[in-house]
Parts: sequence; structure tokens; C-alpha cells
Amino acid sequence: MGERIVVINPNSSQDVTDGIDAALDGLRLDGGPEIDCLTLAEGPPGIESQRHVDGVVGPLCRLVEAQDNRASAFVIACFSDPGLQSARETTRKPVLGIAEAGIATALTLGERFGIVAILATSLGRQRRFVRAMGLESRFAGGRPVGLSVTALADEDLTLSRMIEVGRALKDEDGADAVIMGCAGMARYRDRLEDALAIPVVDPTQAAVGMAISAVRLGYRTAAQRAMH
Amino acid sequence: MGERIVVINPNSSQDVTDGIDAALDGLRLDGGPEIDCLTLAEGPPGIESQRHVDGVVGPLCRLVEAQDNRASAFVIACFSDPGLQSARETTRKPVLGIAEAGIATALTLGERFGIVAILATSLGRQRRFVRAMGLESRFAGGRPVGLSVTALADEDLTLSRMIEVGRALKDEDGADAVIMGCAGMARYRDRLEDALAIPVVDPTQAAVGMAISAVRLGYRTAAQRAMH
Amino acid sequence: MGERIVVINPNSSQDVTDGIDAALDGLRLDGGPEIDCLTLAEGPPGIESQRHVDGVVGPLCRLVEAQDNRASAFVIACFSDPGLQSARETTRKPVLGIAEAGIATALTLGERFGIVAILATSLGRQRRFVRAMGLESRFAGGRPVGLSVTALADEDLTLSRMIEVGRALKDEDGADAVIMGCAGMARYRDRLEDALAIPVVDPTQAAVGMAISAVRLGYRTAAQRAMH
Amino acid sequence: MGERIVVINPNSSQDVTDGIDAALDGLRLDGGPEIDCLTLAEGPPGIESQRHVDGVVGPLCRLVEAQDNRASAFVIACFSDPGLQSARETTRKPVLGIAEAGIATALTLGERFGIVAILATSLGRQRRFVRAMGLESRFAGGRPVGLSVTALADEDLTLSRMIEVGRALKDEDGADAVIMGCAGMARYRDRLEDALAIPVVDPTQAAVGMAISAVRLGYRTAAQRAMH
Amino acid sequence: MGERIVVINPNSSQDVTDGIDAALDGLRLDGGPEIDCLTLAEGPPGIESQRHVDGVVGPLCRLVEAQDNRASAFVIACFSDPGLQSARETTRKPVLGIAEAGIATALTLGERFGIVAILATSLGRQRRFVRAMGLESRFAGGRPVGLSVTALADEDLTLSRMIEVGRALKDEDGADAVIMGCAGMARYRDRLEDALAIPVVDPTQAAVGMAISAVRLGYRTAAQRAMH
Amino acid sequence: MGERIVVINPNSSQDVTDGIDAALDGLRLDGGPEIDCLTLAEGPPGIESQRHVDGVVGPLCRLVEAQDNRASAFVIACFSDPGLQSARETTRKPVLGIAEAGIATALTLGERFGIVAILATSLGRQRRFVRAMGLESRFAGGRPVGLSVTALADEDLTLSRMIEVGRALKDEDGADAVIMGCAGMARYRDRLEDALAIPVVDPTQAAVGMAISAVRLGYRTAAQRAMH
Repeated sequence: MGERIVVINPNSSQDVTDGIDAALDGLRLDGGPEIDCLTLAEGPPGIESQRHVDGVVGPLCRLVEAQDNRASAFVIACFSDPGLQSARETTRKPVLGIAEAGIATALTLGERFGIVAILATSLGRQRRFVRAMGLESRFAGGRPVGLSVTALADEDLTLSRMIEVGRALKDEDGADAVIMGCAGMARYRDRLEDALAIPVVDPTQAAVGMAISAVRLGYRTAAQRAMH
Repeated sequence: MGERIVVINPNSSQDVTDGIDAALDGLRLDGGPEIDCLTLAEGPPGIESQRHVDGVVGPLCRLVEAQDNRASAFVIACFSDPGLQSARETTRKPVLGIAEAGIATALTLGERFGIVAILATSLGRQRRFVRAMGLESRFAGGRPVGLSVTALADEDLTLSRMIEVGRALKDEDGADAVIMGCAGMARYRDRLEDALAIPVVDPTQAAVGMAISAVRLGYRTAAQRAMH
Repeated sequence: MGERIVVINPNSSQDVTDGIDAALDGLRLDGGPEIDCLTLAEGPPGIESQRHVDGVVGPLCRLVEAQDNRASAFVIACFSDPGLQSARETTRKPVLGIAEAGIATALTLGERFGIVAILATSLGRQRRFVRAMGLESRFAGGRPVGLSVTALADEDLTLSRMIEVGRALKDEDGADAVIMGCAGMARYRDRLEDALAIPVVDPTQAAVGMAISAVRLGYRTAAQRAMH
Repeated sequence: MGERIVVINPNSSQDVTDGIDAALDGLRLDGGPEIDCLTLAEGPPGIESQRHVDGVVGPLCRLVEAQDNRASAFVIACFSDPGLQSARETTRKPVLGIAEAGIATALTLGERFGIVAILATSLGRQRRFVRAMGLESRFAGGRPVGLSVTALADEDLTLSRMIEVGRALKDEDGADAVIMGCAGMARYRDRLEDALAIPVVDPTQAAVGMAISAVRLGYRTAAQRAMH
Repeated sequence: MGERIVVINPNSSQDVTDGIDAALDGLRLDGGPEIDCLTLAEGPPGIESQRHVDGVVGPLCRLVEAQDNRASAFVIACFSDPGLQSARETTRKPVLGIAEAGIATALTLGERFGIVAILATSLGRQRRFVRAMGLESRFAGGRPVGLSVTALADEDLTLSRMIEVGRALKDEDGADAVIMGCAGMARYRDRLEDALAIPVVDPTQAAVGMAISAVRLGYRTAAQRAMH
Repeated sequence: MGERIVVINPNSSQDVTDGIDAALDGLRLDGGPEIDCLTLAEGPPGIESQRHVDGVVGPLCRLVEAQDNRASAFVIACFSDPGLQSARETTRKPVLGIAEAGIATALTLGERFGIVAILATSLGRQRRFVRAMGLESRFAGGRPVGLSVTALADEDLTLSRMIEVGRALKDEDGADAVIMGCAGMARYRDRLEDALAIPVVDPTQAAVGMAISAVRLGYRTAAQRAMH
């Protein structure tokens, strides 16, 4: 069997998974790993609270276990990185979280990154995450579009709000790179980048890019090496 | 013409370039970008001082210009990231520095990274670099193998010193991921990783991995977009 | 009904709950809130991994809901603060995590705090937590006793290892206050403090102390105010 | 003799002491420590400059000495924490400063705290204090009401300015918890909290709450243990 | 021969050198070091990009070598501190960079410093520099006057823009000391300081002041001591 | 009247004042400010505790007032910078503290500085000070010689302990510049620097050097400008 990267959308919206899947086409290379996007059936329609985040960890880890012998690496495609450390305890394969990988990628694209969030209630969670990464000095700030995950279906409204928020991050907060703070925003990257004229990171793309390297190079943590 | 990543070894040692080139085989995919490793003829045999670092920027930028219309992205393959910002002013294509990309990658592999340096005199430069990235809280420290770049040719001695230094980073300084602080160390990654049992990042591999994503996804900074 | 603080031990060891309960006697004041210690039946015998941490959040939040109309505040008595933010979304009452409260308390007792951990595998999780609190500059470091939660039953062995670790934190790492990194260590505080001659924080005591204030003073976050 | 917490208002305004005293009623429990609020006769009417801060340390320490054999703990009720370290050298009993304790408490109530200061000239002193605590990454900022300590007597004006400042901290600076930066503001907590709908910390309440725990649990620093 | 401080203007504008030279008169003391200002003939008219910065290092180090036996210390008079570490490898004499020395001086004059930059494109470079010094928590921010180095010749326009920018740094960003971010601004210090009423640091003056001390006190780094 | 810098030794040991005075000879230039060293009669023989620090502020400010019309600048020559902010409120002239100025100077001499302290009990105070300056990332650490201020009279013992401590700071803690953490150590700088072969900063020399610049350049803070 060839190499295969399993991307897990931990919410149950197949539409979001489809958007992710389409956005990854550029990273599907002949000779490179297969990239499969799965929807976590047990997840909520959108991950909108810490309780949602914590709630999907159990089924997500079970899905990792179920896929483990057919996977070369895993990507958790929700910007809260639910279960990232738990999944790393579950499999010997590399596990990438899209928040962690998206932020790491932004470090190479600009001096200070901003985050286009969906909900205002996510901002505290994201700031804690950035601080846990040790990167607050590179963080220009986060701003919410103020729409629910499901409402992202209204493309025109969503895009115009994302552009508005992205411009505020750039012009008022001093961001010179922007991360889209939700896997469900994948389809907007090109248009948002054109509007802002600074790099826009789709964190799922960033994580899958790093997963390809991880698969090809064989990184494994000490804990993963020590597994039976 | 297809996509092509130009990796520039800014020292003049073809032997180092060959080592880099071999280490990148895992990232050469049929449908992916061509990866070409060039030696900077004007560079010193090894980059061992800040004056060496600053001295190669001019010829390096000229090489970037000469290659620009046949390149999709550039990687500067020296752990001091010489000319990284200058090269970014020189071309509209993505430019990755191996220190920046290696450190960004290490963030996804462990809690605190250590750096296996060549010379003790590089430690201050590396610490300044880590601090400029805003990442001192993730930095377990650097330790030198105490050998010149050219002396890396003695493989047994070099490897045993690298393992010794890596163990000190892991056991005394608390690193759970290690970055090899020189492009010339590429050939030792597998053996060092086996000995340490924690992830060992070859920064050139890390940077080329990120360059592949950058090429496929089309990131460009505002400054690069604004170029004539 | 009078005020009542509900302390939840998220592991299933009644023995640990009993130890916590006894350690809280000093904070039971006439006229003050009742302090009830509950065991989370669904929890594992000890919380020893991130997967354990994430795994107890669901049942823990359900217990919070079940107790909500008879509670004035909640304390989550596990040093990983499992479900802290989720619980805060679940109830309008103050919720204290013992790691957060223990660290906040240590700031008033010394210049740099150390953590006596149980397992080496917890150290990364604790460092991430300290960094997420923004407090790495006050953190002298963590060291593990290297015993499982259940093995804490062997009191002499446990105490002697805790003293050994505490002395290393004090003498080698420069801590002038020490936090016991497990709710199951409650019974050792007096003896450890006598041996070390610096303040030793039992984080459950610290959290319950802060919960008493929170109950008496009526703090509620904006999110908690906004609940139906 | 029972336990007794001595709260020292280091300015000479009995009116301020009375306000503090009233605000502490919620923390007076039948079985808990007596809480006595004393006015430092030698203090200025309000502590409005660094010279005032430094000037009260001598008489404040003499008052600590005079009260020492009848006190279980001390609270210094001025947001500049005058003489905090000196007082800790003076008595073996726990000494809490209201700035230190108020900030520690705010860490458990929100993601970033703001400070409602009295005078613009205090902002530098407060920022230095926050930085000395290692907590600048949790600090949303300070804003002055621009009234002298004595002018706090005009309640309507004071409250409306405090609300205005608190709203700016919340809406413009991103604070989700607010600390009142003066012991003389105690009487406004409830009304300010109602107006802002986020937690408002009266730092004297916070410090007395922590002092109760310290008395009940018996924390003493190494220096305090070592005293004759 | 007496003591002599060599101040190198790394751009080729004699007019800028003359302005620097005049601004140093106050530091020319009988019995103190001679202060000579040299223009780097090989430099560009103004240093406006990273490529300019890196490009002057070679000729600048050669000038240091040529002057070495007649110099007691060197000052690099460009706010990007081009070649600072390289020059320190080149001579055993103290080398001061005006950015480093100007920032160090500002620490003694205020709580947070702002930088009046020339071009918006310099802001990222300056922020990286501040972060590399470990001082982001003291940095109120930078703002550009938006004029080229050569356009500084129009004194009225330049001064009015500098005052405008300085006021924004003071009133909006909270700076209580301001550093002029270009050696070519030397002639404006007095007028800018009068307009802002807070300390304005001319970084060349600051560096020459520190160079006088270094010459008189004989500081040399270990690397400089070790030179042949 | 000519320019005159008043250096105040806030302890009452004339012997320490004499040592300071002798160490400043190199900064006395024919055309430069007069440098007068005064002993604070009301100070303790040595400043060995926070209570000593706070206790000298009153008399020190009175001495500043008494000298004000004959002084161009003040230097507070105790490494705890007692009364630094209070003195700045007392006079319109520049006031330098030797800890602040010594640390600022060390930033230009090395990558990480260490402090040779006198007493172990000063280490916490110094760490708080470094953190309040925002500079913990440049701080290699402090180590005590373990001798009282008065015991510094035994020169051979003192010097050998200082060298021992300095070597530990250099070799174990990674300092490449060392600050002598007491004004009373002034006489040892040359010998310590020779032994360590890295820059050794006498903080009083550093502060007087910066005071000369401040006098010649006329820096005054907004608060000092605003004085009657």
C-alpha cells in the first residue's frame, strides 16, 4: 500500500469536508501520498464552543485507531486542534493540527499574523493557544466575522465579512499575514488573498503540506517511538 | 516549464551541496517541483562567522536574480539564513531560510527544541535568531560539536560528537526535538535520530518541504506582490 | 439552602477523594460554604495521559449539570484542569481549576515556583499550561516523582521521592515555592513543607480558598452572565 | 486569641478605610479570622506618587511590628503595594499586597485584565508592576479616571467615570476582567460590575480572601521561617 | 596619539554625515576622545532596504580595518545597525550600533519607547531588531514619516511629519520616550523634543556617548580579546 | 557654575564612597562635568535588605533636594536603585540608577549578562528588577559571593570569591558579560575582567557615563518638564 494522509474534519458537515477536499488538490502529487478527507460522523455540525472541542476527542481518537493501519499521517482539520495531543498518544504516525501548523507556516510568511475567526467566543481560546505556542509576540490579533460555521454557506456574505475583517487585521492591527481560523473557510483563500494582497494561510493546506514532509521524512516523537 | 525549487548552498563546498542534494530525494515526487541544488561559487568553504554570513548576501542575491525566471521558489541552505530578507526583496517567488523553516517545523514535533551547532561562536547568533523569531520560550538551548564545517568530512568523529551533543540537549536541557544547525549535517539525520529517539530536523529538508507547499499554494508577501 | 462548593475528583479513586476531603478541613468555616468532594465514577483510576484528560470532560460536565442547582461554585481537582473551559460554559457558577488556582496562589508566595509532578510524561502538558497562562518567566521547572497515581498509596516511598524532587527544584532549579502537581498528593503537604522549608501549595486547597472568595463575592464572567 | 487579619490602609483617610471595611463584610465568616482595618496615621491623604509610595514604608513596617503579636496575616491595602517586600522581611506572618493578589485573582476570571487607575501618572508604575510579575501578556492595559483619591468622594461623578473607563478597557483594549486600581474604589464594585457585565475585582477583597486561605493553611516563606 | 572615536555613516550622503557631525558637538569634551565622522563612499545615498543594509557590510568592514590602528572605538551610524556583529569580529575595539545603543539609552528615559521611522518598509526590520534585543515589552511601536532619506532635506516638511508621527506614538501608542529611527534626523532632535515634551533620543548621540564610556573604561568582548 | 554630576552612595560607608570615587576617574574629562561622590549619612552601613532599600528613600530624596540647584544630574549608587522613581519626581535633572544603567550598558556588550551579587537574599530582588525592565530573556542569572557589604574590605577573599562566581556565571550559566551587583565592588573591576576575559560592568561607571551624555544632551522626561 502507498502512503496515505488521513484528514479528519471533526464536525459532521460533509459540505465542509468537501470544501477542504477541494482545497487540497494542489497538494496531491503523482508519487506523493494519497490525501483522504473523512467526516467525523459523531461531531456536531460546527465546532463552536470549548465543550464541542472537548466532546469530539473521544470519537476522533477512535477514528484514528480505526484508520491507523491504513494511514501514514493524520491531520485534524479544525482550528481548535481538538484532541491533538490525545491523537499523538493514540498513533505512532505523525499527527498535525491545523492551528499549530497554520501558525508555524505563517511565521515564514510575515512578521505578525492575524486570525480571521468565526465567532467572538473563539478569540479567548485562540489567544490561549497562541500563548501556549509561545508566540504572542508574533500575534497581531484575532477578529471574528461573527457568523456561525453553518452560515458560511452564504458565500457572498461570508466573503465580504472575511475581507472586512482581514483588512482590519492588516490596517489596524498590523498583520502582514492572515490565517483563516476555520477549516470551513478553505474555499475563500484565493479571493481573500487577492483582496488583501498579503499571504492568506488556509491552515488545512498548511498542515497537509507539513504532513507530506513528515510522511516522506519519517518524523516520530519519543512517545510515538515507545508505543508497543 | 514545470515548477522548480532552487536550493542554494551559500558556501563553496560542492561536497556539502551533494549531501544536501541526497537528503532531499525523499521530497522529489513525480508530480511535484523539480529540486535543484546549486553551490555559490563566491562563498567561503564554510560559513563560520557573521562576516561570512554578511559577505555572501551580495553574490547570493545575484544568483537569485540569475535564476529567477527559471525558479518557482528559493531555499537558502545555511543555518544562519544569510540574506533571507534581502532575497525576499529580490524576487517575487517564495524564499525559505532553513533556520526559520527548521524552527517552524520543530514547533510541530516537540515542546522544546535544541540546536546541534557546529561552532561555539555560532551560539550567540543562533540565540539572537531564535529571539528575533519570538520563540525563546520554546528553545531548550544550543550546544556546539566544536568542529569546523570542513571537518564534518570525518564521518565517524562527527557523528559521535553529534550524538553526544544531542544527548546533552535531550537529557540536560530538556529538548524533545533537535534541529541540526548546519546544512552540512544532512547526511547524519537518520543515524542521529536513531540514536536520540526523538525527532531530528534537517532544516534543509524542512525548508524544501515548506517550499513545495508554497509553490503549490502560491503564497507571496505584499512586498513581493508589489514588485514591478 | 446555604452555599456549597462542589469539588470534583475526576478520577475514580475514592481514596484520592478522601485525601482531598481531609486536606480541606482547614477551609471549612462556620458560616462559610459547605465543601463537598465528589468522585467522578466514569473517570479512570488515575489521570495519566492527555487522552485521560480529554476523556473525562464529558462525564465531568454532566456531573456539573447534575449538581448545578445545588452548587455555588465548582472546583476541578486534577492538576491537568480537565474540562476547565468546558465547565465554565456549562454553569453560571464560578469554576476553579486547581492548576490555574495553584499557580495563581504561588505567585503571592515566592519569586519562582516549581512543580512536583507524578509522571515524566506530564511535564510537557504542564509546561504548555504554564505558557498558556503567560507565566513561563515565573516557572522554575517541573520534575517527576516517577510514580503512578495509584502507587501514591505507598506513603513512605512517595514522601521520600517528593522531598527529593522538591529539594532539586529548590536547590538546582531555584524555586522558592513548590506546587504539588496532583490532587492525590494532598496528604503530604505538611510533611513536604517541613522538609523543604519553603511554601508548598496543595492546589486543591488553593482552588477551594479562591472558590470561597468567589462564592462570597459573586464573580461571574460575561459568558456566564449571558447564559439562559 | 483567635485568628485575625490586619488590613492596613496606608493613606490617612479614615473614609477610605471605612469603605474598605464595609466591602470586606462578605468575607467575615463566623468560624473564620477576624478582619480588622487600620488607618496609617502617618500616611498622606492619598498615595498619588512614587514618593508617597516609598514614604509610607517606614511607618507601615512599624505598624506591622506593633501589630505582629496580635495578627495572623497582613494585607497592605494600596494598589501600589507599598512596602510589600519590606513587610515580608518584618513579620513571619503572611503578607498580601492588594495589587499582587488582585492580579493573581484576575488570572482565574478572564483571559486579559484591565486596570481602572485613578491618575494617569500611576500607569507607568502599574505597568512596571505587571511586568515584574511576569504577566504583561495577560495585561490588556490601564486607563485613568483622572480624579484624585480625595475626589472619589463625589460618588456619581466617580462611578460614571469608572464605568466609562471600564467600557474602554473592555471594548477597545479587549479586557474581559477589570481590576479596580485603588483601595478607595471598594464601594463601587457592585455597580461597576453590573454596568460592565464582566468580573470586577476589588483587590482588597481579593487579597483578604487569599489571606484567609494563607492563615488557615499556614504558608510561610523560607525567609519568614528563618526569622528569630 | 589620543583617543579617537570613528563614526561611520554607511550611506554616501555627505550631507547626512555633516548633520551627524554637528549633532555630536555636545559630546566633544576637552580631554575626551576626538570624534571623527566618516562617509562610506561605497554606500547608497540612503539605506532604504534590507539589501542596502547587507550590501554595505563589506565596504564598512574594510573601512573599519583601514581605520583600526587610529581608532579607539567605532560607531555605525545607521539605524539598521548594518554589520554590527561583523564589525565586532573585525576589530578589537568597541563597536556601537546606533539602534542598539539608542534603544538601551531609551530604557533609562521612559517606560515605553516609540520609533520615528522613515519608511513603512523599515517597520518589520525594526520590530525584528527590537525582538532580537529581547525588548518587545518596552516597545510602544514604530510609525513612518513616509519620506525617503534624501527627502529629509526639505526641513519644514520633514519636521512637521516627524512631530505628527511623534505625537501619534505618544498619544495613541503610549510612548513616553521616542527614538529617531535614522541617523539623518539628527538635526531635528531639539525641535522634536520641544514639540513632544518627552525625551527624544538621537541614536547617534546615544551611541557616541556610550562609546566615550567604552573607550575610557576599556570594555572588550571575549571574542575581541581573543583576536590575534 | 559648570556642569556637575552628583553621585550618591546611599549607604553610610565612606570607604565605599571612596572606592566609587576612585573608579570614576576615567570619566572625569577636562571639559566635562565635575563628578562629586556623596555619602548618605542617614543610610545603613550596607544596604542588605528590601527594608534598607525602602528606608533610604526619604533621606536620599532630601539630599537630592538639597543638592538640586548645584547639580546637573544625579546617580544613585546602589544596585537596588533605591528611590529611583521617587528621585525622578523630586528633581527636573536626569537621575540614573546604577542597576538600570548597568543593565542597559551590558546589552551592548554581550548576548546574556550575569550578575555577581553580594548576598543570596538579593537574588529575588534582582530578578524582579530585571523582569520589570522587560529583560529576562537577556539574563543568564545571578549568583552571590555570600559576603556582607562590609566584609568586602577583605580584598583577597572578596576578589577570589568574585572570580569564582563570575566563572560560574560564564561557564555554567552562559553569561558573556557580567555586571558587578554592588557599588562597593568598584575597585575589583579590572582584576575581575582580567580573570574572566569577558566585559565586566561596574554599574556606577556605566551610570555616570550615561549621566554625562544626559547632561550634555539635555534629556528630561515629561514629568520633569512639568515641574514647577
